[in-house]
Amino acid sequence: MTLPLLTAQNDRFLDLEKQILAAQPAIEHWLRGKWGEHDAPFYASVDLRNSGFKLAPVDTNLFPGGFNNLNPDFLPLCIQAAMIALEKVCPDARGLLLIPENHTRNAHYLQNVAVLQKIIRHAGMKARIGTLIPEVQSPTEMELPDGGKLLLEPLVRKGNRIGVEGFDPCAVLLNNDLSAGIPAILEGLEQPVIPPLYAGWSTRLKSQHFAAYDGVAQEFAAMLGIDPWLINPYFATCGEINFQERQGEECLAMHVDMILAQIRRKYAEHKIDLEPFVIVKADAGTYGMGIMTVKDAAEVRDLNRKQRNKMAVVKEGLQVTRAMVQEGVYTFERADDAFAEPVVYMIDHYVVGGFYRVHTGRGRDENLNAPGMQFVSLAFEDTCLQPQFDSSGDCAPNRFYLYGVIARLALLAASLEIEQLAQLHDPALMQQPRKVAGA
Amino acid sequence: MTLPLLTAQNDRFLDLEKQILAAQPAIEHWLRGKWGEHDAPFYASVDLRNSGFKLAPVDTNLFPGGFNNLNPDFLPLCIQAAMIALEKVCPDARGLLLIPENHTRNAHYLQNVAVLQKIIRHAGMKARIGTLIPEVQSPTEMELPDGGKLLLEPLVRKGNRIGVEGFDPCAVLLNNDLSAGIPAILEGLEQPVIPPLYAGWSTRLKSQHFAAYDGVAQEFAAMLGIDPWLINPYFATCGEINFQERQGEECLAMHVDMILAQIRRKYAEHKIDLEPFVIVKADAGTYGMGIMTVKDAAEVRDLNRKQRNKMAVVKEGLQVTRAMVQEGVYTFERADDAFAEPVVYMIDHYVVGGFYRVHTGRGRDENLNAPGMQFVSLAFEDTCLQPQFDSSGDCAPNRFYLYGVIARLALLAASLEIEQLAQLHDPALMQQPRKVAGA
Repeated sequence: MTLPLLTAQNDRFLDLEKQILAAQPAIEHWLRGKWGEHDAPFYASVDLRNSGFKLAPVDTNLFPGGFNNLNPDFLPLCIQAAMIALEKVCPDARGLLLIPENHTRNAHYLQNVAVLQKIIRHAGMKARIGTLIPEVQSPTEMELPDGGKLLLEPLVRKGNRIGVEGFDPCAVLLNNDLSAGIPAILEGLEQPVIPPLYAGWSTRLKSQHFAAYDGVAQEFAAMLGIDPWLINPYFATCGEINFQERQGEECLAMHVDMILAQIRRKYAEHKIDLEPFVIVKADAGTYGMGIMTVKDAAEVRDLNRKQRNKMAVVKEGLQVTRAMVQEGVYTFERADDAFAEPVVYMIDHYVVGGFYRVHTGRGRDENLNAPGMQFVSLAFEDTCLQPQFDSSGDCAPNRFYLYGVIARLALLAASLEIEQLAQLHDPALMQQPRKVAGA
Repeated sequence: MTLPLLTAQNDRFLDLEKQILAAQPAIEHWLRGKWGEHDAPFYASVDLRNSGFKLAPVDTNLFPGGFNNLNPDFLPLCIQAAMIALEKVCPDARGLLLIPENHTRNAHYLQNVAVLQKIIRHAGMKARIGTLIPEVQSPTEMELPDGGKLLLEPLVRKGNRIGVEGFDPCAVLLNNDLSAGIPAILEGLEQPVIPPLYAGWSTRLKSQHFAAYDGVAQEFAAMLGIDPWLINPYFATCGEINFQERQGEECLAMHVDMILAQIRRKYAEHKIDLEPFVIVKADAGTYGMGIMTVKDAAEVRDLNRKQRNKMAVVKEGLQVTRAMVQEGVYTFERADDAFAEPVVYMIDHYVVGGFYRVHTGRGRDENLNAPGMQFVSLAFEDTCLQPQFDSSGDCAPNRFYLYGVIARLALLAASLEIEQLAQLHDPALMQQPRKVAGA
């Protein structure tokens, strides 16, 4: 499947592509150095937007679902990367407890959990699924869309160890983003929990991620001699938001104005004839909830009750108290008649696959992570690992190599972000002298 | 492509397969521990023979050619593993010098070098090819079977650094097994050489490899509760051999007798109704030269002049002065009308692909590594990483997982072997107290 770029923006994108391809050894060398200094998260997925003149991450998920949407040809790559990741996490471990989201009615999500379990098992670990769902009181088999079954088991905590009946794992792998807060049963465990609890949405903030990404993008762009804006969306945040009580609205409007002005200047500088827009979204949270496209500050002053309610809560009733205003990046990629955005999957610091998120009902300036979205998996020859040095022009493997590079920049930002969170939240680090982020 | 096992031996093999599959988490855990203690070679290929009742490595190549015979779908796996290997070898390096064999007339070998170069480049390193061929005095483009070109450049040594014109690499990757001895230009380099020079055939001995494998197979078999013989061929060695002067013939005949008797006992114990045979081969050397199938000690006493000449030298005129007598393992795998043996490729300690070596002109009790051999690449779904736990019976993915396990045991043996060689040959280790192998 080929996804043609709209030709108007194509030339500029090919310039960026050429610069990144030409610098491949330098980029990989730079990344190798970074991974020598920072631990990559166990896994992550990054949503990218490609506007033809700009390629930027817009969301980095540290508890990625959607492994079932990867082309099955990618599985060996996932398994090999998982072997590497597991060697680091717990070289002595034979058993991993996987704790998924509580979505028992989302069969596609359950299929994702089954694929993750398969990857871990093939990487040579026992893997069982412990669920936080209070109704699951005994091992329960769930039907999967592919005809298989998934066994969910109730969590059993004994002292400071967690497991399921007859299974005392050496580590816990979270595939639950903790939007509902950190469950008491997971606190104070002696087993390592990966990602750490403080990487969940009850503590993590998108703005901290993009602040870390700012630094990464600056350094990367300086190395390449490019304008960092080409890979980095502007953003700003407002704390103390309460959409229902119209609190913080002025802060939001001011930042919308500011970001729109910044984009307008950049569009003029780069001679881009498009209307700037921003995305307003919850600073904590996921699932594409609490997200709106805004082209004028007046829009956030005049939210009607329905819009305010929509923005006020995200997944699992998590209240929105902080909002982020982020430069909107048009997507100029299409699959058939629908707009598409690439999603890149990584395990440890290796790109292991990806797909396009496609939405027939949404525009190029809208969030595509919404009900009705579909997934178009990348074919194996399109893996992000094999750019074609000798080919000229618009070719899918080159574009996917680029996507893999930008996704790894976001991954590196996530590493830095988790290091900062660890300074604030990890009891093991509490004794050490530390610097509060932002201080 | 499915390669059916002959049914007579099938049941026994399925028993071994089931035991190994059932123990997968324990096996991978054990291997993880080993790779924590020992460094894997940069790359290796292992020739296996599967007789239906027995699955054993018969040759471990530390300078593998044949990457061009891997299914191209395996490339991303190779690239990812090469990234891991290169991070260890030289995290700061941007450039690797690849030194190939001197076979300029073997276009398929050149294609292998081109694939290796591609893997290294995609892993994010500059890679250029420095040749030992004295006739190559300036950069020379070679035509490849796939229509591409390969640039061979003359080696340039400055002080204790080696490179090619305008390229000062941080490390040297050998794809030359040094059968002709260690060239002076490669001695005393300050850059790391991988594999180390002493892993070449001018110092390495097959018998040392199989002595190391003995220990690995014993420990592995004890863990699984199986007879180690099921994965380990008997062997013995004779030093002071001179085939042309008929020196050492008695030693050889004695060991042939001994090994045949050992096999006969095992065949009786396991109720195997086949005629035992041994392979006599040079203890150092490669390329399937200097190898013969022997079913009676009388055969090595009555070598005619032609046979003696054939056994006396291997590749590049390397004289055979030591011979190994190894239990012959029948191959019961077939591709169409020809007998086949699997070859498994690894980079670092990861299985990255494999193929079948097939020879229409050779029998199931003969060496298949001979002119006229062909290669049948494994399809991607058949990668050794994905056994099917839930499937019963004879299924290709399970067989390939098994192949990957046994190949990694041979790889571990190679690690131990290289550690022993380092004790003897590495100047950096000379100062340390050491134990001479065998002392």
